[in-house]
Amino acid sequence: MSQDPLVIFTPSGKRGRFAPGTPVLTAARQLGVDLDSVCGGRGICSKCQVTPGYGAFPKHGVTVAPDALSDWNGVEARYDEKRGLQKGRRLGCQATIQSDVVIDVPAESQVHRQVVRKRAEARDIVMNPAVRLYYVEVEEPDMHEPSGDLERLAAALSAQWQIEGATADLPFLAAMQPILRKGGWKVTCALHLGDGARKPRILHLWPGFYEGAIYGLAVDLGSTTIAGHLCDLASGEVVASSGLMNPQIRFGEDLMSRVSYSMMNPGGAAEMTASVRAGMNALIAEIAAEAGTTPELIFDAVVVCNPVMHHLFLGIDPYELGQAPFALATSDALEIPAASLDLALHPAAEVYLLPCIAGHVGADAAAVTLSEAPEKSEDLLLLVDVGTNAEIQLGNRDGVLACSSPTGPAFEGAQISAGQRAAPGAIERVEIDPATKEPRFKVIGCDLWSTDPGFAEATATTGITGICGSGIIEAVAEMRMAGILDAAGLIGGPDQTGTARCFLDGRTHSYLLWDGGPDGGNRIAVTNPDIRAIQMAKAALYSGARLLMDKLGVDRVDRVVLAGAFGAHISPRHAMVLGMIPDCPLDKVTSAGNAAGTGARIALLNRSARDEIEQTVRAIHKVETAVEPRFQEHFVNASAIPNATEPFPELAKVVTLPDVHFNAGDGADGGRRRRRRG
Amino acid sequence: MSQDPLVIFTPSGKRGRFAPGTPVLTAARQLGVDLDSVCGGRGICSKCQVTPGYGAFPKHGVTVAPDALSDWNGVEARYDEKRGLQKGRRLGCQATIQSDVVIDVPAESQVHRQVVRKRAEARDIVMNPAVRLYYVEVEEPDMHEPSGDLERLAAALSAQWQIEGATADLPFLAAMQPILRKGGWKVTCALHLGDGARKPRILHLWPGFYEGAIYGLAVDLGSTTIAGHLCDLASGEVVASSGLMNPQIRFGEDLMSRVSYSMMNPGGAAEMTASVRAGMNALIAEIAAEAGTTPELIFDAVVVCNPVMHHLFLGIDPYELGQAPFALATSDALEIPAASLDLALHPAAEVYLLPCIAGHVGADAAAVTLSEAPEKSEDLLLLVDVGTNAEIQLGNRDGVLACSSPTGPAFEGAQISAGQRAAPGAIERVEIDPATKEPRFKVIGCDLWSTDPGFAEATATTGITGICGSGIIEAVAEMRMAGILDAAGLIGGPDQTGTARCFLDGRTHSYLLWDGGPDGGNRIAVTNPDIRAIQMAKAALYSGARLLMDKLGVDRVDRVVLAGAFGAHISPRHAMVLGMIPDCPLDKVTSAGNAAGTGARIALLNRSARDEIEQTVRAIHKVETAVEPRFQEHFVNASAIPNATEPFPELAKVVTLPDVHFNAGDGADGGRRRRRRG
Repeated sequence: MSQDPLVIFTPSGKRGRFAPGTPVLTAARQLGVDLDSVCGGRGICSKCQVTPGYGAFPKHGVTVAPDALSDWNGVEARYDEKRGLQKGRRLGCQATIQSDVVIDVPAESQVHRQVVRKRAEARDIVMNPAVRLYYVEVEEPDMHEPSGDLERLAAALSAQWQIEGATADLPFLAAMQPILRKGGWKVTCALHLGDGARKPRILHLWPGFYEGAIYGLAVDLGSTTIAGHLCDLASGEVVASSGLMNPQIRFGEDLMSRVSYSMMNPGGAAEMTASVRAGMNALIAEIAAEAGTTPELIFDAVVVCNPVMHHLFLGIDPYELGQAPFALATSDALEIPAASLDLALHPAAEVYLLPCIAGHVGADAAAVTLSEAPEKSEDLLLLVDVGTNAEIQLGNRDGVLACSSPTGPAFEGAQISAGQRAAPGAIERVEIDPATKEPRFKVIGCDLWSTDPGFAEATATTGITGICGSGIIEAVAEMRMAGILDAAGLIGGPDQTGTARCFLDGRTHSYLLWDGGPDGGNRIAVTNPDIRAIQMAKAALYSGARLLMDKLGVDRVDRVVLAGAFGAHISPRHAMVLGMIPDCPLDKVTSAGNAAGTGARIALLNRSARDEIEQTVRAIHKVETAVEPRFQEHFVNASAIPNATEPFPELAKVVTLPDVHFNAGDGADGGRRRRRRG
Repeated sequence: MSQDPLVIFTPSGKRGRFAPGTPVLTAARQLGVDLDSVCGGRGICSKCQVTPGYGAFPKHGVTVAPDALSDWNGVEARYDEKRGLQKGRRLGCQATIQSDVVIDVPAESQVHRQVVRKRAEARDIVMNPAVRLYYVEVEEPDMHEPSGDLERLAAALSAQWQIEGATADLPFLAAMQPILRKGGWKVTCALHLGDGARKPRILHLWPGFYEGAIYGLAVDLGSTTIAGHLCDLASGEVVASSGLMNPQIRFGEDLMSRVSYSMMNPGGAAEMTASVRAGMNALIAEIAAEAGTTPELIFDAVVVCNPVMHHLFLGIDPYELGQAPFALATSDALEIPAASLDLALHPAAEVYLLPCIAGHVGADAAAVTLSEAPEKSEDLLLLVDVGTNAEIQLGNRDGVLACSSPTGPAFEGAQISAGQRAAPGAIERVEIDPATKEPRFKVIGCDLWSTDPGFAEATATTGITGICGSGIIEAVAEMRMAGILDAAGLIGGPDQTGTARCFLDGRTHSYLLWDGGPDGGNRIAVTNPDIRAIQMAKAALYSGARLLMDKLGVDRVDRVVLAGAFGAHISPRHAMVLGMIPDCPLDKVTSAGNAAGTGARIALLNRSARDEIEQTVRAIHKVETAVEPRFQEHFVNASAIPNATEPFPELAKVVTLPDVHFNAGDGADGGRRRRRRG
C-alpha cells in the first residue's frame, strides 16, 4: 500500500497521515497537538520530547514497527550526552516518521500542561502564561533593503512563530542591537503575548538560546501581611514562597484607620503608597534570593488585595472608600508597568491586578472567586473569606451574589484580652472537658496538647503568649458546649459552673485557660468582653451569609468553603457551634486555604483565566450590607450562641449541651440578657 | 402636506427630513454632517454655530420661511450677551427645525476644518487631531450598583460620544475622584482617541466645562537647531513658533562626529541624550511662554529628525548608524509617553515619531514626504532636502525612490574659509557684474545692497561677519557667470580676469568679496578650497539625484522642490548654474520652506496622516548611495561647474558665459584639472 504512514498522538488521540521523513514536531503542529518547543524545531531546546510506542496497539488498530521512527541522530546523541535524555524518549524535531507510529506526549512536553492543585475538589491550573520564551533566527541588516533591527526581529517572530506585530519599549530598544550581534542574529526573546487590545511586546533578549528559567510572581497583598509565590513561567512550579508584614501597619492596624490617616495627614496617602511599595520590593528581593535567582528574571506579576490596599498600592487616595457610597476610582482589572509602581522586577514587567467586585469587595475576593469558581458550581456554595472584613459569596452556575461584612479584627485575635496574631506560642486549639470543665490546648509550634507529658519543655522557648483567632473561636465554642457559657453569651460564675476557673473579673466572670504561675508567667483567660467581641464578629459573618441566602430565597446551602489563612485553621465544628456559618452538613464544610493567593497564581499562569475572571466579576450581583435593613435584623438575631443540639444533630452525638442561663450580675451590659433569663 | 420638514446642509449638500422640533445638531449628526460640538449639545460650548439661510433656494428647490427654525432661545441669548454670537448665527443644539430650511456650516464649526497652507501648490491640512476635548455628564456612584468612577466616566463617553473602552493611566486615576466631585459629575475630558491597536485614553479632566484651549507641539529636531510650532489642537492655528540651537553641538558639529563621540566616550551617548532632551525642554518652556500658556496644556507632540538624532533622542546608542550596513534599531513610527523621554509636557502626553525611511534617510525625510506628497504627484517630482546630508526623493504616483547623499556641511557655510551660519551680518545674496567683475551683496538683517547709499550705517551694528550657505552658492555661481571661475573650478588670476579682486592666496587665487578696511574690518574672500568644498557638495547632491533618475530610467524631471531652511533661501537660478540639481525649467523649481516642520505639523493635526505616511514610507524604494558604483561615476563627472549656456537657454538670455579655463598653477590638486585644460 502506498499510503503515507499513520501517526497517532496520545493522550490527545489526534491522528493523521504524513509523508515519510516528516519530523514528529511538524506532524504535531499540523494536527494541533500540544507539543512544546522554544527553539522552533532546531534541536536546541529539547522541549519537544516524545515517547514513541512500539508493538501492537489494538485500540488504535495499528502495529508499530521498531523502525517506525528514524534512527537516533547526532543532535539527540549530543543532547543525551550533555543533559541526559530519559530512556524511551526522542526529540520531536529530530525523529522523523518512517511508518505507522503511536507517539505519546508526556505532560512535561505539553505547552498547556497542568499544574496540579493539592485539594481534591480544586480544578488543576492549565498553563497558559502571558510571558513565554521564543528562540528566533533574525535576518541580518541589508543596506539595500533597509529596515530596523526591531522590525526584522518582529518579522522573525511572525515567520517562525506566527506572532504578529510584536513591539518593544525604549529601554529594550536601547539594549537590543548589541545582543542581536553578540548572538549572531540568533536570540531568545521573552515575549508578552498581548491580547486583542494590545500587541505582543518583546520584554527581553538573550544572545543565542537561553536555557534558564523566567519567573512570575503572585502576591496576596493583605492589610497585615504580604505573601508571594514565585512561579516558573514554563512549568508553573512554585519555586519559592515568602511573606512579610505589611509595613503600612504603622499607619494603622485596620483599613479604616489607614483611610483616616490619609484624611488627617496631608501626604499621608502618598506616604502609605511608598510604604507598601517598599514592602513589595522587600518581598521581591527576599523571594528571588530564596529561589536563587534575581528580580530581573521576574517578567510578570499578579497582585490581589482589598480595595483600600488596591488604591494605596496604586497611589490613589482611598478617601472615597471611607464613606458611602464607597466609590472605587476604578473597579476593572488593570495591567500596569511594574516600573510605574516602583517595583524592582524586570524593567519591562507588568503587574496584573484582578478586578474589584465592589467598594468593599476587592480583587482579593475576585481571586477567591477565580480559585473556587462558585459560578461553575453545580450545588449551592457559600464561600467565605474571613479577615478583618469577611467577603461572602453565595451561588452556583445560575448566578453568584457577593457582599462584605464588617466582622472586625476579633477573628484575627485583635480586640481579645489575651489575643495575639497566629505566631509561635499562641494557643490555637482548645478542648474543655464537659464534666470537669478543665481545658487542654495546643500552641502554635508544638504538636503536644497541654496535658501531654513534655509539653512544658516543648514550649519552654516560645512560652505560652496568648490566644490567636482559631484558639478563641474554639475556646468560646468549647465553653458553650461545656456549659460554661449560656446562649446569650454570659460566662457563669464558679457556683453555676462548678469550677474555680470561672472567676469574677470586674462585673462579669472570666474563664481561666492558663495560669503561667507566679514567676511572671502569663495568665490567659477568656473574658466576657472577649465573648462579646466574638459574638459581634460571628453575628456579622452569619448575617452577611443569611442576607445573601434571603436574596436568593434559600434556607440552606449545599456546601461551605472557608477561605483565607484563618479559614485554613478554623475548625468547622466549632464554627458551627458558634453560629458563624449557616446550617450545613459538617462534611460539606471545607477549607480552601489561601484561596486569594491561589487565585493570584491561576491568573499568573493562565492568561485566559484573566479574561474569565473579568467576565465573572461583571456578572456577580453585589449586595451592600450597610444599607440593607435585613442585615441589621439578622445581626440582632445572630448574636446568640445556638444550642447545638438542635441545628446540628451530628454534634449532639458528641456532646450534650445543657441549656444554661447565667446571671450577668448587675453589669452594665446585662440588661438585655437579664430580660432573657428563664 | 404632512411630510416632515426638509433640512439641507451646505456646503456638504447632505439632506434629510426631520420631525418638527428636532435640534439642528441632532439632524446634522444623523446625516453625518461635520458639525463640531464639545459639550454634546448642552448649549455650553457654542462650537455648533450654524448660519441658516432664508428665502428662495432654487438650486435646492426649497424656499425657507422666516420661522423655519425655532425662536432665539434663552441659551442663545445668554451666550450672545456673554461672548457675542455673530449676526445670522444660531447654536445648532438650541435651534430646532420647524419647516424646510437650508443650513450652512461655517468652516470654524467643522470638526474636520481645514488649516490653509500658504504655498499655492500645497494641500491644506484637514483637522483630525489625536487629542480632543469632550464634555460629559457622569452617573453618580451607587452602592447598589458598584462600579469604579473611571468605569462610569468611560460609560458616559460611550453613551454620549460613542467612544468605546476609554482607559487612563495611574496619575490620572490618582487625580480623578476629587475633580469628578468638584464638577458635580460634569467634566471635560482631554482624550487621546487611540487607534485600531490601542484604546482611547483619557489624559486629563477639568471640572465642569473647560473653555480653554489645548495644544500640540510639532518639532523639527535638527542636528544644529531645534525648531517647534505650538498649535491649537481645535483650530489648528500656530499660536507660537520658536527655535534654539541643539545643545548637542558641543559634542560635535556634524552627526558623524557625534557618533564618534559616543564610540570614544563611555556614557557618551547617554550624555548626548540628556543634552538633546534638555534642549527640547528649553524649547517647550520657551514656546509655551511665548504663547502665554503652560507646558501642562500640551497634550500631543510630533518630532521629526534624522536617524542619528532619532536614536540619540530616544536614548539608543547610534553606534550602528556609523558603519555599514547602517542598521537602525527601529525604523517604524513610534508613539512614546513624553514622560519616558523626560519631556515636561502634560504628564500623560505622547510623542509621535514619524517612521525612518532608511539608516540615512530619517523621520525628517518622511515628514518632507508627508508635506510634499511625491507619491500623489502627477508629474515627476524631484524633492531635495538640503542639509549636512541631502535627502533626495524622486517619484510620482507610480512610485517613489529615496536616497541620502553626503553633501557635507559646506552648504551650511561650514568648511568655508569665511563661512558662518545664517545669522545677522552674514552675506546671503551676491551679484557680480560680468563687465567690471565688481560684486555687490546683501547681508542678513539688512534690506539694502552693499552698493546702496546708507548700507554702511544700516550694517554698523551687525557688521559684515562672513558668508552663509546661500551666499557662498550665489558667489560661486556669479563668479562662474562673470568669467572669474572656469568650468573645472579654478579661480583666475588678476591677469586672466582683469580684476585686482583676484589675488594670489597660497598656490591658488582667491576672489575678494569684501574688505572691511585696515581698522580691524573683516576681509571676506572666496578661496579656491571654498570652491572645491562647494564642488564636492553640489556633486554629491547632483549625483544622488542622477542616481535616482537612472534607477527610474529618466533623463529629466518635471519639477524640483527644494526643502529645508536652506532650500528656502537658495536661488534656483544659481543652484542650476552651479549644477546642484538636474535640468528642469526654472519656473518649475520651487521652495517648500521648512517642509519637515510642515510634515510634523500635519502629523500633529491629522492622525490619519500618521497612518498614511507609515504606509507611504513602507512603499518607498530606498537606494543606498554608498555602495552604488554609478553614484561614484556621477560624482566624478559632476564636479565641473557647467557652461550655463548649454543646459539653460533661459539663463543664456541674461548672461553670456565665456568658456574660460585657468591655470591652476602647480598646486597639489591641479593634476586632473590641468589635464582637462584646453
